[in-house]
Amino acid sequence: MKQVTLWGLGSMGSGIAKLLRRRGIPIAAVWDRDQEKVGTSVGQLLGDGLGNGVFVSQPDENYPPPGNVLIIATGSFVPEVYPQIMEGLYAGQHVLTIAEEMAYPWASHQKLAENIDGAAQAKGVSVLGTGINPGFVLDALIGFLSACCSRVESVYASRVNDLSPFGPTVLKSQGVAVTPQEFADGLEDGTIVGHIGFPESIHLAASMLGWTIDRIEQEREPIISNTKRETPFITVEPGQTAGCRHRAWGYSGGRCVIQLDHPQQVCPDVEGVSTGDHITITGEPSLSMDIQPEIPGGTGTVAVTVNAMEKLFHAPPGLRTMADLVIPSCRQ
Amino acid sequence: MKQVTLWGLGSMGSGIAKLLRRRGIPIAAVWDRDQEKVGTSVGQLLGDGLGNGVFVSQPDENYPPPGNVLIIATGSFVPEVYPQIMEGLYAGQHVLTIAEEMAYPWASHQKLAENIDGAAQAKGVSVLGTGINPGFVLDALIGFLSACCSRVESVYASRVNDLSPFGPTVLKSQGVAVTPQEFADGLEDGTIVGHIGFPESIHLAASMLGWTIDRIEQEREPIISNTKRETPFITVEPGQTAGCRHRAWGYSGGRCVIQLDHPQQVCPDVEGVSTGDHITITGEPSLSMDIQPEIPGGTGTVAVTVNAMEKLFHAPPGLRTMADLVIPSCRQ
Repeated sequence: MKQVTLWGLGSMGSGIAKLLRRRGIPIAAVWDRDQEKVGTSVGQLLGDGLGNGVFVSQPDENYPPPGNVLIIATGSFVPEVYPQIMEGLYAGQHVLTIAEEMAYPWASHQKLAENIDGAAQAKGVSVLGTGINPGFVLDALIGFLSACCSRVESVYASRVNDLSPFGPTVLKSQGVAVTPQEFADGLEDGTIVGHIGFPESIHLAASMLGWTIDRIEQEREPIISNTKRETPFITVEPGQTAGCRHRAWGYSGGRCVIQLDHPQQVCPDVEGVSTGDHITITGEPSLSMDIQPEIPGGTGTVAVTVNAMEKLFHAPPGLRTMADLVIPSCRQ
Repeated sequence: MKQVTLWGLGSMGSGIAKLLRRRGIPIAAVWDRDQEKVGTSVGQLLGDGLGNGVFVSQPDENYPPPGNVLIIATGSFVPEVYPQIMEGLYAGQHVLTIAEEMAYPWASHQKLAENIDGAAQAKGVSVLGTGINPGFVLDALIGFLSACCSRVESVYASRVNDLSPFGPTVLKSQGVAVTPQEFADGLEDGTIVGHIGFPESIHLAASMLGWTIDRIEQEREPIISNTKRETPFITVEPGQTAGCRHRAWGYSGGRCVIQLDHPQQVCPDVEGVSTGDHITITGEPSLSMDIQPEIPGGTGTVAVTVNAMEKLFHAPPGLRTMADLVIPSCRQ
C-alpha cells in the first residue's frame, strides 16, 4: 500500500494532494516552510472536505519522512531538490519530483544525478522527475509517437500556451509587461529565464530515439505586443512584452535533430494566436500531431505525476526518466 | 543477441523483414506456405540487396523455429495464429504477432489466451499482439494521452483512412465497389467484415483507464459514393459502395465510455473527406488530438512491431499487451 509524504503545498503540491486524496491514496505527512500553512489541517487548506487529521508541518519536524513515497513540489533546479530527494532515499522512499531539471538531471548536474542513482539503487527504490513539460509533451510524447516510425530523421515540436492564468512570479520570470530593453537586461542578469526544461526534453527525447546529443543551442526573444492585453495580474501596453519565445536546438553528429519552440505569453488570442501542442516527426513515415488547445500545464502536471507514480513502483531501482516507465495512463 | 524467425512473408512480413535487416537484427529463418516463395532467397524477394543466405522455407521444414524471437504475420484471428504461437513457445521463443485479435486476445478467446499465457510463463518468455490498429492508434495512444488527465469520463476516437493503396483481398473484406444490397448480403454471410480489432482496442484502452467493459456494440454501414472513384485495383461507380464505416461502443456499468469510429474507403479526397487519426478525451482536463493525415497502416504496423520487440524482452513473462510495455519508441 502506498503512503505519501508531500513536500511543498504550493499550487502544484495542492493539486497533487487533492488528486491523491480523491484516489484514496493516504497522505502520511505534508511538509511546507510557509509559516501561514504550518499547523493548519490539510483538509482545510485544500477545501476538499476530506479531513484525515493531517496537519502541515515544517520539513525537518517529522524527519524521517513517513510513508513509502516522497513527492517533492518545491523547486525547479536539481541543487534545490537534491537534499530533499536524499532525505527520501535515506528513509527508503520512492521519490517523485516536478522539478523541471529532474526530468533528465544528467543534462545539468551529472555528478548529483549519479549520487541520486547510487543512493536509490542502494535502497532498492526509484526516483523520477516528471511533469507536463518537461516530462510529457516535448519529450515522452515525441518518443511514444515515434514508435510508429521505422526511421526518424528529425523532430520539430512546439508548445504555444497562454500565461494569463499565472501570477506575478511566473510572469516576471517570463519577462511579461516590460520594455524590450528591460527584457534584454533581464535575460542578461538572469531574472528573465523563459522556459526551464529544454536541455532535459532534448536529452530525454533523444534517449528514446537512440541519439546522442553533443550540443544544444537556445534563444529567448521578447514577444512584443501590438495591442493592450490585460489579465487579473498584469496589464501589457502596446510596445511592451507579452511574453518570451524560447527556442532550442539539439545537435547530434553536427546535425540539428530536435528543434523545440515554446512561445509563452499572456492573452495570445487577442492577436489571433491559437494555443496548442504540435509535433512533427520527419522520417519513415513522417507524421504531424496537434493537440488544440494545449494540454493545460497545471492540471496536466498534477495528473502526470500521480499517474506516473503508479508505474514508478514497478521500474528498476535507481534514477529513472519517463522513458523507463511502462506506458503511463489515467487508471482511476 | 536477438535472432528472429519470421513466419509469413506477405506485405507486412516483408516490411518487417526489411526493417529487421536494416537494423542489423539477424533473421535466422523465414517461413511461408506460398510455393512461389519457398526456396527463393530472402534478399532476392525483398530486393534490399542484403543477402544473408536465408531462403524461404515451409513452416514445418525447420521445426523447431530457430532464434529467440518468432514474429508471426500470417492471419488476423486468434485460432489461426494459436498453433504458430505455441510452436514458438515450445521452442522457448518470445513471440510477436500482428494478428489483430491478439492485441487483446481475452476479448475473443479467453481459453486460448489463458493457454498462451500459461505456456509463455512456463518458458519464461513473453507474447505480444501489436500493430498500428489495434495496438496503437485507437488504444495505446488513448491510454498514453490519458496520463495527462486526473479523471477520464469518456473517450471518442476515430481513424479516417484511405483504402486506395490496398489490393483486392482487403477491398473485398471492406465491401468496396458493390451495391448497397450486396453490401448488406456480404455483412450477413460474413464476406464483408469491416475493421478487425474493435473489441480488442476497447478492452485494451479500458485496461489502461481502469475500466471493466461489460458490453460492446458494433455497427457496419456502407459508405455510398456520389462520384466515380478509381484505384489501380478497382473502380467504384456512383451509387456503389466506396467502403465501410465501422463503429463500436464500449459500455462500462451501463454507460458508453469508449466510442470508436473507423470509416474506411477508397479515394476519400474526391468527396472532400480528409484522412486522419483523432482522439477526444472528456475528463479533467479534456483534450483533443489530431494526426493528419492518419499514421499509415502498413509502414506503421511494421515499425510498431519491430519497435515493440525491443521492449517485449524486458516485460514480465506471459501473454502481454501493449499496455504492459515500457514506452516504445523508434530507437534506431
